[in-house]
Amino acid sequence: MTDIVDWIAVDWGTSNLRAWGIASDGSVALERNSAKGMGKLARDEFPAALSELLAGVTPAHGGTLDVLICGMAGARQGWLEAPYLEAPTDLRGLLDGAVRPDIVDGRIAPAILPGVCQKAGADNVMRGEETQLLGLAALRPGFSGVVCMPGTHSKWAQLSGTRIERFSTAMTGEMFEVLRTHSVLRHSLTGDLDGPGRAEGFAAGAAAGLERPEQLLGTLFQVRAGSLLSGRQPDWCAGYLSGLLIGTEIGSNRHLIGGQAVPLIGSPALCALYAQVLAMIGASGEPQDATQIVLAGLKAARSFAA
Amino acid sequence: MTDIVDWIAVDWGTSNLRAWGIASDGSVALERNSAKGMGKLARDEFPAALSELLAGVTPAHGGTLDVLICGMAGARQGWLEAPYLEAPTDLRGLLDGAVRPDIVDGRIAPAILPGVCQKAGADNVMRGEETQLLGLAALRPGFSGVVCMPGTHSKWAQLSGTRIERFSTAMTGEMFEVLRTHSVLRHSLTGDLDGPGRAEGFAAGAAAGLERPEQLLGTLFQVRAGSLLSGRQPDWCAGYLSGLLIGTEIGSNRHLIGGQAVPLIGSPALCALYAQVLAMIGASGEPQDATQIVLAGLKAARSFAA
Repeated sequence: MTDIVDWIAVDWGTSNLRAWGIASDGSVALERNSAKGMGKLARDEFPAALSELLAGVTPAHGGTLDVLICGMAGARQGWLEAPYLEAPTDLRGLLDGAVRPDIVDGRIAPAILPGVCQKAGADNVMRGEETQLLGLAALRPGFSGVVCMPGTHSKWAQLSGTRIERFSTAMTGEMFEVLRTHSVLRHSLTGDLDGPGRAEGFAAGAAAGLERPEQLLGTLFQVRAGSLLSGRQPDWCAGYLSGLLIGTEIGSNRHLIGGQAVPLIGSPALCALYAQVLAMIGASGEPQDATQIVLAGLKAARSFAA
Repeated sequence: MTDIVDWIAVDWGTSNLRAWGIASDGSVALERNSAKGMGKLARDEFPAALSELLAGVTPAHGGTLDVLICGMAGARQGWLEAPYLEAPTDLRGLLDGAVRPDIVDGRIAPAILPGVCQKAGADNVMRGEETQLLGLAALRPGFSGVVCMPGTHSKWAQLSGTRIERFSTAMTGEMFEVLRTHSVLRHSLTGDLDGPGRAEGFAAGAAAGLERPEQLLGTLFQVRAGSLLSGRQPDWCAGYLSGLLIGTEIGSNRHLIGGQAVPLIGSPALCALYAQVLAMIGASGEPQDATQIVLAGLKAARSFAA
């Protein structure tokens, strides 16, 4: 049995590889997923991983199958490095910046989109999020404002239509993980972290972070002191740590948040927490469907060739 | 051969155990060290560790040998928990708050000093630093102001004579270690970290932290971006990370720093870095001899019994 598609859209992240077959009318004809993320592959293993994922898929028009890839496949430690575009830049230029690895098995023609960097004393990089931002711009023509992309390395980007003006990265998600696993705070974070105290701890931590983002190095230790002195349980402590970090991130980006809702692109659970903290300062967040966003971004990138 | 002393002063930390034999004129008659810090001992191993360290030491006055201990031996996971005094409190009350484990081997009479805690929405704890603060007060009668104790968990304490008014803890040293070892920043911090670029990176990081302590979660990621985009070497990145964390700590405590020099109690290398960053904001730091400070604190604690 074969699947016939017009082209293939791929999001190749650090942990996962996701592909969608796009029919000639733009609809999604098939979806395939694999755990072969960039982080698990050596450079020479990328072609086989893609070929395996796309077994039995053939192009409607004959010839080779176009595969448009965003994400970590284009990183230095990925398949083939796709040099960054430098912000400020118009994301309609993504396809022009793509790199093209050799044809795979004589039948698959891959193109890897670039990430976006920022220099001039504000060094920063993104890979994958630029395609999501283009997707947001395509789904919401004329949108202008800040976009928040919560995650391991949260991004805050200022978008004007398809143009990315400026962005920053907050190590919020990774900080939660390394502190929970490797710091003295782990003693307060062992046991049931999802108990009923988590929501109360989250609200308290978020309030502290929002109020004094400059005190993070100090407030973090209160997770430990709170369990030693006030008998705070692991679920409360986990909520406090999570809230404190997200509150600090949002508090430090407060000057970017205007009157309109902040689009949130990330996992639904995480976006809901960010929306909750935004509401605490009288702002609002608008969680997006991340899959729709990345698909819209890959389609838009493909449509803007020079 | 036996050593004859009046009493024994002990600093029992997480990593190390240090003892000084004090002669009847107050001078140090002997010094002994061991790697048997609290972190390496089960509760029932403390008596033997102390007895072994003090083999052959006898009291000048006959009877049992008084041993006054500060630090982690009094922690919940230590020898015998010494409940915290609660700040604000007069540190002349430390000995009254001491706990007394059973006499060891019929010849050693240990007393463990309490730590100090803080409650009322600013939960915090210290163990060991309170004795150093009393030592500073003893060596500098009448001193009033903020004291900085750099380390894994840096303390900032407001002292008025022998009274501790308030304190906070910054997880600066531990943050450096967990980020260097376990976060994405480790990719930028492998190789020679002590090369000539370290000083330049330190100054740049300190300036960034001092200027915008609220941006720590974001500025941290610039360590990684700087090595990807600007070819920053591991020594520069290590200096930047260290400077950024210390600059953030000092920047967030700026409101506590007045016109007088801030006493710094910690390792000489670390105190020199803190003094350098304090100078960047027109303040000054005054590194103390940490051994003299803790000895003075144990002597002072012993002299103030109810």
